[in-house]
Amino acid sequence: MKACGLVVEYNPFHNGHVYHINEAKKISGADCMVAVMSGNFLQRGEPAVMDKYHRTKAALQTGIDIMLELPYTYAVQSSNLFAKGSVRTLNEVGVDSICFGSESGDIAPFLSGYETRMKKESTYKEFLTKALDKGLSFPEASKEAYQAIGLTSNAIDLSKPNNILGFSYVSAIMDEELSINPLTIKRTSNNFHDETVTSSIASATSIRKHLFSNKQSVKEIQYTMPTTTIQQLNNYQQKASTWHSWENYFHFLLYRVQTMEINELASIHGMEEGIEYRIKKTANHATSFHDWISKIKTKRYTWTRIQRIFVHLLTNTKKSEIDSLNIKTSIPYVRLLGLTEKGQAYLNGKKKQMDVPIVTKLSRNNHPMLSLEERASHAYYSILPIEYRKKLFKQELYSPIFEKK
Amino acid sequence: MKACGLVVEYNPFHNGHVYHINEAKKISGADCMVAVMSGNFLQRGEPAVMDKYHRTKAALQTGIDIMLELPYTYAVQSSNLFAKGSVRTLNEVGVDSICFGSESGDIAPFLSGYETRMKKESTYKEFLTKALDKGLSFPEASKEAYQAIGLTSNAIDLSKPNNILGFSYVSAIMDEELSINPLTIKRTSNNFHDETVTSSIASATSIRKHLFSNKQSVKEIQYTMPTTTIQQLNNYQQKASTWHSWENYFHFLLYRVQTMEINELASIHGMEEGIEYRIKKTANHATSFHDWISKIKTKRYTWTRIQRIFVHLLTNTKKSEIDSLNIKTSIPYVRLLGLTEKGQAYLNGKKKQMDVPIVTKLSRNNHPMLSLEERASHAYYSILPIEYRKKLFKQELYSPIFEKK
Repeated sequence: MKACGLVVEYNPFHNGHVYHINEAKKISGADCMVAVMSGNFLQRGEPAVMDKYHRTKAALQTGIDIMLELPYTYAVQSSNLFAKGSVRTLNEVGVDSICFGSESGDIAPFLSGYETRMKKESTYKEFLTKALDKGLSFPEASKEAYQAIGLTSNAIDLSKPNNILGFSYVSAIMDEELSINPLTIKRTSNNFHDETVTSSIASATSIRKHLFSNKQSVKEIQYTMPTTTIQQLNNYQQKASTWHSWENYFHFLLYRVQTMEINELASIHGMEEGIEYRIKKTANHATSFHDWISKIKTKRYTWTRIQRIFVHLLTNTKKSEIDSLNIKTSIPYVRLLGLTEKGQAYLNGKKKQMDVPIVTKLSRNNHPMLSLEERASHAYYSILPIEYRKKLFKQELYSPIFEKK
Repeated sequence: MKACGLVVEYNPFHNGHVYHINEAKKISGADCMVAVMSGNFLQRGEPAVMDKYHRTKAALQTGIDIMLELPYTYAVQSSNLFAKGSVRTLNEVGVDSICFGSESGDIAPFLSGYETRMKKESTYKEFLTKALDKGLSFPEASKEAYQAIGLTSNAIDLSKPNNILGFSYVSAIMDEELSINPLTIKRTSNNFHDETVTSSIASATSIRKHLFSNKQSVKEIQYTMPTTTIQQLNNYQQKASTWHSWENYFHFLLYRVQTMEINELASIHGMEEGIEYRIKKTANHATSFHDWISKIKTKRYTWTRIQRIFVHLLTNTKKSEIDSLNIKTSIPYVRLLGLTEKGQAYLNGKKKQMDVPIVTKLSRNNHPMLSLEERASHAYYSILPIEYRKKLFKQELYSPIFEKK
């Protein structure tokens, strides 16, 4: 059986994602679709609208055969580490290809771009350092450095989020010399950051915006998502009493910052270059989560970077913990969130050749990386009434979701 | 001017406290009444019903001339450290006497009890260790050890909370050879722990119980408190939207414990003998604050001790912080919460002879003990809506309350 891997967040799973699965199937010729998905916290440093289990259910009913969880330690990171963790996870279960969406839908500039980057590594780094020293944020500095080595937007536009991520996947595959075929499809019309829903293929950003602005109802935008997502969104809202947005966590973050001394704050993962002083100073004046970030933000500290720091603060993730996990060298396990019958058949054929164990649920004596997963899960549900959070957390202790069809 | 010191919590200030002030005035012959009061968290490990500023206002309008704050580091502690901090604070402002309530109203057994204790110190300690090894709680073990050295309830009943505290004050005065005259008055009929209001002199416990059980209204029990307290209770409820009880903090505590690894939990002040494992294990099953403590409680870990640990967890107070403060040897400052004109005249006369500074508000570069005070204050208000907590916290930055009369 041939497998194609997808790197996803499904926040939430919508028609654009269905399109992605179908196109990837076509160009890869794969029978089995394997996704690696961020858990309850996402790459841009945000809580997911609903938990990973409900997002998994929606995806398994609409084209995904195996859903793996990208460990927290990779999920809430810059694009390079995020891509590394994702590609490695997919590689562990032996996918033949990985297919991502890009602006052009052409894989050639990604491959030649990687060659150029390799050849001019030292020049790239030199310009990157210079740009960072000027006070630019990492994404902006990186863009300048790419231009300096000739990777201009004519070849591949590395200012577009999808291209940045795609280039990271290709780089991760090439760097580790994996026998995975990188594929890309042209992404559909809606832009990543579009804020309004205009057609049946809408951005996840615009869908979320609608969800939180319209009395938590999905009705008016149900034509943008498969019915399975609508069901899971309604289902989750019933079980949890709400969907999750950063504003729900504001009082926890504020409480944490106001009861931590500056040196303890500095020990949180991602807290660098003295940003802890800005976070502490602004805490007493913040009136909402949004207001707080806008008070912290500078040219160098991007919105996304600050949000990621806040996730680590919420989950109490220390620099020392991340350092001890050696995430740059290997992944210690593959966490299985759910699968279909086809996915099960595929995994049964692969299990024996795998280098790392498949983890199906949290239990004692798990890997330290899973303790972090447990904390992230508790932190995610912490805003819910006590009876709901207990029930929802228990999903971590069950066997993977099995979708018969 | 002669001054008499009182050790108080005023949670809330009621008719029994007015009686205490009046009787203390009589037997001490003092002109100026000085109180040292626990701040927002109390000796038995509880948040105060309303904050220290509103409790101060009520007391200044009804007999107290100077209100000092007992630092957090002494307030949320066992009776010995609590007494040490209180007596030292009162000594710093030069009180002539300290007057406390006791079961008998006779100071003689306290003084002779202290002599006995001194003479038989080693026997006391031996029996104390034995009793603790049997698994008894400290209060119970201490009672057994006192009996062993002849301090039976005929002389002084050291199972009664007021007598235990009184004995601690006398011991603190004697141990440090302070020129303070210990005085005691017989306490009024209601018992410390009585849960129902039966007369105009009711216990603070019964008053609090009523406040939280009757739709947060004071009307039916207003005859148990001076009108100034009624005003401040209503006033606080308007400004804060609620009075404070442990249940309000349950979700913060749960969030904290569920996002901390066991070794970090063990670093919290008061966390001893592996109680962190019990706290962690029971966290996932607790349905309320009350339910949680009842699941943690054993013969050795008393309700009060667990509550104190929870206060330190909420305020993020580390063992290492408390250790570095050397609280056993001296107090670094006296914090002034409020005063009357008479109190001001008294303090002006004493200032020059004082060994430590009077701190009137929180500001930068304060003593590290005040950083803890700041965190405790933030933690206390953290349950309130954002606009209220900001306003109430600002009281820490104002000059002391001045009551002209």
